[in-house]
Amino acid sequence: MTEFAWSVRVYYEDTDAGGVVYHANYLHFMERARTEWLRARGFEQDELKSQLNVLFAVRSMNIEYYLPARFNDSLIVTVKIISLRGASMMLEQDIKKENESSVLCQGKVRIVCLTASDFRPCPIPAQILEIRTTI
Amino acid sequence: MTEFAWSVRVYYEDTDAGGVVYHANYLHFMERARTEWLRARGFEQDELKSQLNVLFAVRSMNIEYYLPARFNDSLIVTVKIISLRGASMMLEQDIKKENESSVLCQGKVRIVCLTASDFRPCPIPAQILEIRTTI
Amino acid sequence: MTEFAWSVRVYYEDTDAGGVVYHANYLHFMERARTEWLRARGFEQDELKSQLNVLFAVRSMNIEYYLPARFNDSLIVTVKIISLRGASMMLEQDIKKENESSVLCQGKVRIVCLTASDFRPCPIPAQILEIRTTI
Amino acid sequence: MTEFAWSVRVYYEDTDAGGVVYHANYLHFMERARTEWLRARGFEQDELKSQLNVLFAVRSMNIEYYLPARFNDSLIVTVKIISLRGASMMLEQDIKKENESSVLCQGKVRIVCLTASDFRPCPIPAQILEIRTTI
Repeated sequence: MTEFAWSVRVYYEDTDAGGVVYHANYLHFMERARTEWLRARGFEQDELKSQLNVLFAVRSMNIEYYLPARFNDSLIVTVKIISLRGASMMLEQDIKKENESSVLCQGKVRIVCLTASDFRPCPIPAQILEIRTTI
Repeated sequence: MTEFAWSVRVYYEDTDAGGVVYHANYLHFMERARTEWLRARGFEQDELKSQLNVLFAVRSMNIEYYLPARFNDSLIVTVKIISLRGASMMLEQDIKKENESSVLCQGKVRIVCLTASDFRPCPIPAQILEIRTTI
Repeated sequence: MTEFAWSVRVYYEDTDAGGVVYHANYLHFMERARTEWLRARGFEQDELKSQLNVLFAVRSMNIEYYLPARFNDSLIVTVKIISLRGASMMLEQDIKKENESSVLCQGKVRIVCLTASDFRPCPIPAQILEIRTTI
Repeated sequence: MTEFAWSVRVYYEDTDAGGVVYHANYLHFMERARTEWLRARGFEQDELKSQLNVLFAVRSMNIEYYLPARFNDSLIVTVKIISLRGASMMLEQDIKKENESSVLCQGKVRIVCLTASDFRPCPIPAQILEIRTTI
């Protein structure tokens, strides 16, 4: 199964006084990549909410910070499906500098599907489950 | 009319790679002080929304940045009413370091009252207008 | 003089519980556009700092909030020079939705040039002043 | 060993359009609690950097999101040492609503001690290791 990749530029807003990207902000980058991954497969999250009454929420994350990113770096953030079934999916996301092979930060992210109206777990819609096989 | 003052500590999340507080984050500090100023006068914004169907939104801001704040600084953020009538109020907010007199950053902030259901301007509720005279 | 324009997508990180973009986060979008405007003219801010010992800081801003942006909106952020001389420049920045004409938010931003080593105002380097005439 | 606890108020800046605290922002709350935990034991991180040439960085995190926090919630964030030796410490941090027992979010956070000048791992200073036994 191929990976999805999304480019992110590091601006001042992303950094901290240590001179590097603030640790919580890598989670922003990962979510941008997940959003664009769904969009690239035809799923707009505002439409999923208004039309299917579902939204995706982070249930748990494991984040490893290996090397820092800095102001002005051009980063690549990937999305790879580890599992996708029932009400949840497990994704693996790597962040690297463009044209470099070292992983700066890796996240294993469990996403759950919730009904938008009451935040209760619900099955991932069938058309989204097909992402597994259509890539 | 006396000023309201609220303490804010600068954490890494607030700073940027320049070693100082990121310019947009002073707006967070000002909003925290406005929230606590309303709370100190008995107004919880979640109750204003659920009970009176109103919320407050920033309509315009003028911000002057004089001196930077840094990691670990303990800041004082003030709220002073310049005008309060109809559907809007103009507030002046200063940010200083604790026990120092220099103003680091000053905001003049116009706040409008909106109906929570459709974001249209509406009169500020009478009990809030009384903030003018009860201090 | 032509305007520079930069696209910004609204993600969850940018929004607040009011359902719209958090007011301070429009300042992030404006800074991203300024960074890309300088980059498009050949100026990388990390190189300006390491090679010329200068950085740019916001000295003051006037922000008008007209209409809200929401999750998933695709925005266009412009940069237009109002004045550029000595140690400072005044920029006007509009934020609109892609393919729409209404301005959601407008900023008038005064940027000052500082020596990176001690944060004191200094003349804008000559090659940057030429941005005025090369567009 | 007793836990340290720090209060955090949820402001609009912390929330997203889902109406709840944005998932990355719980990491801010946890870092504020770690900063105040060190301060309460006599360690100011800016002094650790300038006097001992050390800083603390997040090496990895495991975050479980159980229940959402919302605008205006008053939260309690705890810090508990799981291990503290050599160049790293493992902390467990719970986030609850004030006066409620349900854990909203739990983080297991590995912190490493780095030399501030070159970001290389180094032993945690002896006086900080004593936190283990002085509580």
